[in-house]
Amino acid sequence: VSSDHATLLETAPHPLLTELLYEPGLREDLAHVLPYLLSIDAAHVAMLVRRQLLSARTGALLLRVNRTLTERHAAGDAVLRDSGVRRGLYLVLEHHYAEALGADVGGAGHLGRSRNDINATVTRMRLRDRLLDLQHEWVALARAIDEVARRHVDTIVSGFTHAQPAQPTTLAHYLAGVQAELLRGASWLARVYEDVDRCPMGAAAGFGTPVAIDRKQVADLLGFQAPVSNALDAVASRDYGIQALAALAALASTSSRLSVDLQTWSSRAYGFLGWPDGLVSTSSIMPQKRNAFVLEHIRGAAAETTAAMVAMLTGLKNTPFANSVEVSAETTSHLWPACDSVRNALRLTTLLIVHLIADAPRMRAFLDREETTTTALADWLVSRYAIPFRTAHTMVSRVVAECPARPFQAADVCHVLRRLTVAEAGHAIEIGEAEVEDVLRVETCVRDARFGGGPAPSSVEAQLDEMRRAIDSIDQVTSARRRHLARAAEHLAEETARLAGTLAGEPAR
Amino acid sequence: VSSDHATLLETAPHPLLTELLYEPGLREDLAHVLPYLLSIDAAHVAMLVRRQLLSARTGALLLRVNRTLTERHAAGDAVLRDSGVRRGLYLVLEHHYAEALGADVGGAGHLGRSRNDINATVTRMRLRDRLLDLQHEWVALARAIDEVARRHVDTIVSGFTHAQPAQPTTLAHYLAGVQAELLRGASWLARVYEDVDRCPMGAAAGFGTPVAIDRKQVADLLGFQAPVSNALDAVASRDYGIQALAALAALASTSSRLSVDLQTWSSRAYGFLGWPDGLVSTSSIMPQKRNAFVLEHIRGAAAETTAAMVAMLTGLKNTPFANSVEVSAETTSHLWPACDSVRNALRLTTLLIVHLIADAPRMRAFLDREETTTTALADWLVSRYAIPFRTAHTMVSRVVAECPARPFQAADVCHVLRRLTVAEAGHAIEIGEAEVEDVLRVETCVRDARFGGGPAPSSVEAQLDEMRRAIDSIDQVTSARRRHLARAAEHLAEETARLAGTLAGEPAR
Amino acid sequence: VSSDHATLLETAPHPLLTELLYEPGLREDLAHVLPYLLSIDAAHVAMLVRRQLLSARTGALLLRVNRTLTERHAAGDAVLRDSGVRRGLYLVLEHHYAEALGADVGGAGHLGRSRNDINATVTRMRLRDRLLDLQHEWVALARAIDEVARRHVDTIVSGFTHAQPAQPTTLAHYLAGVQAELLRGASWLARVYEDVDRCPMGAAAGFGTPVAIDRKQVADLLGFQAPVSNALDAVASRDYGIQALAALAALASTSSRLSVDLQTWSSRAYGFLGWPDGLVSTSSIMPQKRNAFVLEHIRGAAAETTAAMVAMLTGLKNTPFANSVEVSAETTSHLWPACDSVRNALRLTTLLIVHLIADAPRMRAFLDREETTTTALADWLVSRYAIPFRTAHTMVSRVVAECPARPFQAADVCHVLRRLTVAEAGHAIEIGEAEVEDVLRVETCVRDARFGGGPAPSSVEAQLDEMRRAIDSIDQVTSARRRHLARAAEHLAEETARLAGTLAGEPAR
Amino acid sequence: VSSDHATLLETAPHPLLTELLYEPGLREDLAHVLPYLLSIDAAHVAMLVRRQLLSARTGALLLRVNRTLTERHAAGDAVLRDSGVRRGLYLVLEHHYAEALGADVGGAGHLGRSRNDINATVTRMRLRDRLLDLQHEWVALARAIDEVARRHVDTIVSGFTHAQPAQPTTLAHYLAGVQAELLRGASWLARVYEDVDRCPMGAAAGFGTPVAIDRKQVADLLGFQAPVSNALDAVASRDYGIQALAALAALASTSSRLSVDLQTWSSRAYGFLGWPDGLVSTSSIMPQKRNAFVLEHIRGAAAETTAAMVAMLTGLKNTPFANSVEVSAETTSHLWPACDSVRNALRLTTLLIVHLIADAPRMRAFLDREETTTTALADWLVSRYAIPFRTAHTMVSRVVAECPARPFQAADVCHVLRRLTVAEAGHAIEIGEAEVEDVLRVETCVRDARFGGGPAPSSVEAQLDEMRRAIDSIDQVTSARRRHLARAAEHLAEETARLAGTLAGEPAR
Repeated sequence: VSSDHATLLETAPHPLLTELLYEPGLREDLAHVLPYLLSIDAAHVAMLVRRQLLSARTGALLLRVNRTLTERHAAGDAVLRDSGVRRGLYLVLEHHYAEALGADVGGAGHLGRSRNDINATVTRMRLRDRLLDLQHEWVALARAIDEVARRHVDTIVSGFTHAQPAQPTTLAHYLAGVQAELLRGASWLARVYEDVDRCPMGAAAGFGTPVAIDRKQVADLLGFQAPVSNALDAVASRDYGIQALAALAALASTSSRLSVDLQTWSSRAYGFLGWPDGLVSTSSIMPQKRNAFVLEHIRGAAAETTAAMVAMLTGLKNTPFANSVEVSAETTSHLWPACDSVRNALRLTTLLIVHLIADAPRMRAFLDREETTTTALADWLVSRYAIPFRTAHTMVSRVVAECPARPFQAADVCHVLRRLTVAEAGHAIEIGEAEVEDVLRVETCVRDARFGGGPAPSSVEAQLDEMRRAIDSIDQVTSARRRHLARAAEHLAEETARLAGTLAGEPAR
Repeated sequence: VSSDHATLLETAPHPLLTELLYEPGLREDLAHVLPYLLSIDAAHVAMLVRRQLLSARTGALLLRVNRTLTERHAAGDAVLRDSGVRRGLYLVLEHHYAEALGADVGGAGHLGRSRNDINATVTRMRLRDRLLDLQHEWVALARAIDEVARRHVDTIVSGFTHAQPAQPTTLAHYLAGVQAELLRGASWLARVYEDVDRCPMGAAAGFGTPVAIDRKQVADLLGFQAPVSNALDAVASRDYGIQALAALAALASTSSRLSVDLQTWSSRAYGFLGWPDGLVSTSSIMPQKRNAFVLEHIRGAAAETTAAMVAMLTGLKNTPFANSVEVSAETTSHLWPACDSVRNALRLTTLLIVHLIADAPRMRAFLDREETTTTALADWLVSRYAIPFRTAHTMVSRVVAECPARPFQAADVCHVLRRLTVAEAGHAIEIGEAEVEDVLRVETCVRDARFGGGPAPSSVEAQLDEMRRAIDSIDQVTSARRRHLARAAEHLAEETARLAGTLAGEPAR
Repeated sequence: VSSDHATLLETAPHPLLTELLYEPGLREDLAHVLPYLLSIDAAHVAMLVRRQLLSARTGALLLRVNRTLTERHAAGDAVLRDSGVRRGLYLVLEHHYAEALGADVGGAGHLGRSRNDINATVTRMRLRDRLLDLQHEWVALARAIDEVARRHVDTIVSGFTHAQPAQPTTLAHYLAGVQAELLRGASWLARVYEDVDRCPMGAAAGFGTPVAIDRKQVADLLGFQAPVSNALDAVASRDYGIQALAALAALASTSSRLSVDLQTWSSRAYGFLGWPDGLVSTSSIMPQKRNAFVLEHIRGAAAETTAAMVAMLTGLKNTPFANSVEVSAETTSHLWPACDSVRNALRLTTLLIVHLIADAPRMRAFLDREETTTTALADWLVSRYAIPFRTAHTMVSRVVAECPARPFQAADVCHVLRRLTVAEAGHAIEIGEAEVEDVLRVETCVRDARFGGGPAPSSVEAQLDEMRRAIDSIDQVTSARRRHLARAAEHLAEETARLAGTLAGEPAR
Repeated sequence: VSSDHATLLETAPHPLLTELLYEPGLREDLAHVLPYLLSIDAAHVAMLVRRQLLSARTGALLLRVNRTLTERHAAGDAVLRDSGVRRGLYLVLEHHYAEALGADVGGAGHLGRSRNDINATVTRMRLRDRLLDLQHEWVALARAIDEVARRHVDTIVSGFTHAQPAQPTTLAHYLAGVQAELLRGASWLARVYEDVDRCPMGAAAGFGTPVAIDRKQVADLLGFQAPVSNALDAVASRDYGIQALAALAALASTSSRLSVDLQTWSSRAYGFLGWPDGLVSTSSIMPQKRNAFVLEHIRGAAAETTAAMVAMLTGLKNTPFANSVEVSAETTSHLWPACDSVRNALRLTTLLIVHLIADAPRMRAFLDREETTTTALADWLVSRYAIPFRTAHTMVSRVVAECPARPFQAADVCHVLRRLTVAEAGHAIEIGEAEVEDVLRVETCVRDARFGGGPAPSSVEAQLDEMRRAIDSIDQVTSARRRHLARAAEHLAEETARLAGTLAGEPAR
């Protein structure tokens, strides 16, 4: 390496920068960024050769080194450690090229590109993989909820509002409601991918280049749908991070709500639900304890994603619209823990859903102590006797106040209703006990709640069928995207091999 | 009103609840919710009549009162004040019906619905209007940026990274970059509408109803695309709020970044930009002051939307998946100030963009003191003399260090380069001064930066054209949605009039 | 007013600025800022006169107008409306002086001050009042909790961890725990006041002044402890807002946790607690409903304060350390709704605590179905038979698994324990049934839990006594601060009257 | 280990829990929690022995193992790996005791404690160390600022408001303003320590214990000021995290503001400041670049701390006031990265302050092109000619508009002022050019700004002196606390050795 390279590569940063910034950054990048960097480098060099911006031989030399690094890294080798270069992974890589090929050839590939567009591309490739992974885990959860819900279309449970018993519903209806919100979260996640899937390469430092590169080609080789149109946008923007985190936060928000309900219903006071021993914890001092502590971990994702969203928005706030470390490194770093956290929450939720033990008799017994069919009774008074709704509602209020037995006894209820109809209509309406008894049954109530998206089994099955189609569709999109990325990676490997092959016969350096 | 109504309507809440909750809530709802509530009520009653769940006469009586209230409110009358009813606007309305039509008829319309689905529907209708309004204001801003950018495709300005001069670009290229990010924010906003545009009516308290309602009909009358499928989802979910705020926060984030750049460039040290007197403020004690203070207000929206996002996510966190005041009232309330704030920020940004005064000579003069064409010089060494990029870059580093004059003098530069090529290649490369002079000119640099989305005028015009098509498309979607809502409102008014007309001849009560 | 004033006062801002910024700002300031502005103005002018920086006559003229405005505003008059001046309240006030006294005299008071230090002072005075108000409401809550807790030192209830029954405790012990956390929140709030209570007047635009003002005098007249030392700090800092919001957020956080527990325990599945009719709501369609909806409003404060904290921090992020609208207006505006929200939450929580109905028999009955005394049993095995703790714990695990009856039957328990001691120790330990029966009683358990801050009545009473002293202390500090502010206001009024009195005999203009 | 232990220790958790929860948790705890756990264990066992709740021999056996682990860990040994125990570090430790001493003796120490109070104590001890570390780093920064500021009490620079030149000030005055805000942040940090410094041990699961423990003794041995009074508070509260993060966020907020100003002033357009090569970065493609990128990393802490605050508040929101994983593990985990981030930001800021290169001539030259002494001119007209301030201000506005030369030429200024005094006062006031020239000099302006906390050197020196006393005081408190913790640790080690020494002669197992 000629000493002139000193200006870029060898000016020693202050030791504290090395300790606090460069070393931790390099560790992180070697663990998570390296394969993306190598792919980008290969795609860019291949394009330069094809466009005759680099000689076939120089390109081949560079790609041969790139290929070796790629293969060694894939095989688990700890490549690019201990180079002595301190200013970040890209310069470590370029130093490696220079060591292997001499400074001239080693530094020839950095034409028409910059660390700015490379970093922007790495982040998008990394996020692309995480999004597909998250979609995949979500599909598993959605299929688990679907299956458990279908098993419980007839499992009656009290519905609640304001934490109090409201009307009878089914476990399936509850799960279908939660599924609907999760489905929207996943749809947003799938949509975010479209914005992420644009390639910044070619933008260089944010001002494009006079070098006649073909950024469409690089985008193709990296599996992107298209390049980013404007060079400044390419390096300055991280807005897709906001949208990705919004989708993640929505999924975590729904998970927190689901997990609160599951914990309430699995508490001893309710006893509706439970899990096998392998999914609960006990106490180091209270021998009777069986804690559904996994639910509390799941809820951690709600805090983590809200925080990541804030870090992203606060991080971007009042930054110049340009490349900066504040945006490209500091702010972007908050994406990954949020992805991890939601991934874990999805997997843990799937686990708890799959292994959920529902105690149907206890759920049913709870309803006998409550008054959840009073609305049904009022609705029946309207339809059977043409009593206006509010009047019927008021009459049923009297029933609640005056009939002490739970479950309601039809005879008591009829007695009160007859008295009230005299007061209201001037004469007693004949009200049949058998009919009232049927109306007051929670089974009747659930069976009849088939309008307005209610819990009647046929209604819930239709909801689940509609959502299953949407789940299938996200599943297919996810798979198709994964296949597309795999094919692009394969194509890039072939192209690298082909172009490196030009050197057949020459010994590798 | 019969005394039995007491159970629902007349139990006196504690005076402190009236002071802290009901009165402020009612004031807010009378100001912002009433027209939506009246529309929902009309659509629901019309559906009940059509489905023969309510007699034509009862429906007509109710709709006549509804119509009168709607017309009076539209005319600016302060309706539904001072009813003495304290538990929220819906009960005030029902009380008004009862006063006008008697308790029986007045309370007949509340069949197959609940305050839960009504509230959920109000929020969606209100947000729908706000989203269209925001899209509309965004279109105005986008058109303003487009116009100003097109005016400045040749206005050369320094590009910056890390707040330091980087490479030459144009004002148009900068604005196109910002426009691209704003466009994505607006696209997200337009997509959010699709999720919001689902009607919860029919869900009642979250458990549907045995009453044979037709929720598709209600959705149509209210201009919704379709009903929400699952009743619990209908009343429990506010996840669209997260997505709406993500889009708003993205728009505010970009605005904050744009405004920081504009303030930097309008500061005296730069002097690139300015505004007429009507858009700046002075000081009460410093007579020389002209402050671009509006930019600081615009940035307030970034804090406001980040905060609203947090309020939404924190508000939803660990709530039961069911109807609750915490979700439907407390959490949802944070949407509106965020909409207001972004709306103002968009309008103020439009104003500043429209009236922007660019000082092109000063921007150009700044470049003469800087070294922004060194990358172009290195690129030229690569293409002209086949010098590998890193080698060329290193040579130019020497030029920067050894040539003191700014702008660079071609003769000095050639002198250094010739010496370096001897050291590097073993013999001096002949380097033409005229050519170097041209390469070092910022005009050349901008003209040639036509790859990778750079600032070359043709490149930027293509970017702007592409974005103009997207802007047109959002504009059209916005207009189409507004027309659809207007037509639905008209249709509902006609239907209300038609059904109320059944009573022709009877005096209104 | 001479036409020269045009430069400052009469340059027309763009109408959109008037609509979106000045008019709403003025409305807000007339409602909330005016009395503080008038006090500051009076104190400053009084100081100028005393320091002979303003003639006694000019000072008297100004103060006479100030006094009239102050008195009219206190009397409810809508002063300073419709001045036609558009650039904020301060200029409206100065315009009023100019109208009343001529431009020369009217503008003479703005010496050695600026809108920057005035705004900073207004915010501190306003926050000071809000903090005292919040401390006052907190004292009311703390006294209510103290009283209710003392009433329930013997009211046994299940303690919970992970939402499952853990060990027996008392309602008092629970409330004392919550009280302890609330007390720390209030202590922080009281400490914040010390930082807020510094006067920025004299800093002018942030660079002090050559005018020989006495800022100590102004600080005294406004009831501040001292001036802010550095002029830039005086106008640029709003860090006390972070600390104020941290204290508010802590109070809201604890309130949300308390309210979740209260809602759980008031749900029908538990039935431990309740409130009278005036504090619950019912449903428009479910006649049986009694919802503790106030708790859900209280939890809204947790979202509101978290959001306000974020608005404050995001608002300050990346702003120059100097006066700016972004900091002084936009960011600061988030303080007030957070104060309102916590104030309401404190008042509503007090209301619910005061009116709490505890169903002691139901709490006690719940414990009979649970196994909360197993830890006590293990502890007893340790102390009575010197069995190592983990061994004892394991033995009790077997008891839980093998004894089906709840409450545990002493005979069953002894039977299992004897068998286990054989296995463990090689010979049966004689275990007395009567003693075991006593150990397994929740009453015994609570009585004995007097170490480590446990629920034994004497232990809880000691905790409550310690906290009562702290509550008294905050109460006294709050009162002392209020008295100090009242005395300062009185002194300022007297001083204003005295200096204005110089004009005795001259007609007011 | 007897098979009965199975109930607690050996029930296999589901493999996914091991993968996602237990293994990462254990890795984290081995890295960061182990020494605290060992200290707590030693202190608790020592207390049990002293209180005769454990036999001297059992205590000695336990403490001998504890001591060995402590010493091996301190020596860098990887202790407690690969135990095969999966449910968290505490059980790994207990398993280690059981392996070494048999199940009976190994499990004897867990009397009168629980993982709940242990976890709560670990978090407080860990945070205590981090707070002292942060205070220490802050002292270094404060001393650096103090020193640099004192060096620049005469270094004149333009003051800015709204990013525009305002009035002359000094670099020292600016730094003193920032120092004042940082000092308050550090004072809050120091105060948070007092709340953290309370020991939860003895609370057990949150309900105290019937075992006659002495929690004061444990608190002393662990260096705490006192125990937490209420057992539930001890395990359920993490409110000190809110306060700690508020202090950290305040420090990060100020740092972000300082760093924005430093980056602005080091940008080429200003050129006021710079740093040596080892503290800037260059570009991989732009050879001229010298980027102050460290400032952008510093600003990352503002996003990180805001996010951590949100994670803490969102994490606590709507959790039961009791022990839960959500609070004790998930929520608390956000403290540490925030501490790291602020620590780094403080160290990097210190580095940049220490190595700051101020270009005084360039700062001074900037002022010659600006109009920052107009306020001084107006003030002078007031004091010299008794012209009312607003009138003087208006006159100076005319001067700004009519005198084109910068710096202002005294002759021009006098000419305009004379003309205006005729218009204003009816006759020309004699205004001396020499005097005006002096008034318009920035040096005069700074020298005279000695009121209201302005930049006059004596004024700034007084401010710095006052702050230096406060810095010294925080420094002393920090050192005293560190000494106290060191002495407690020493005492605990002695006590452990002493009690373990009972076994002298017996071989260690």
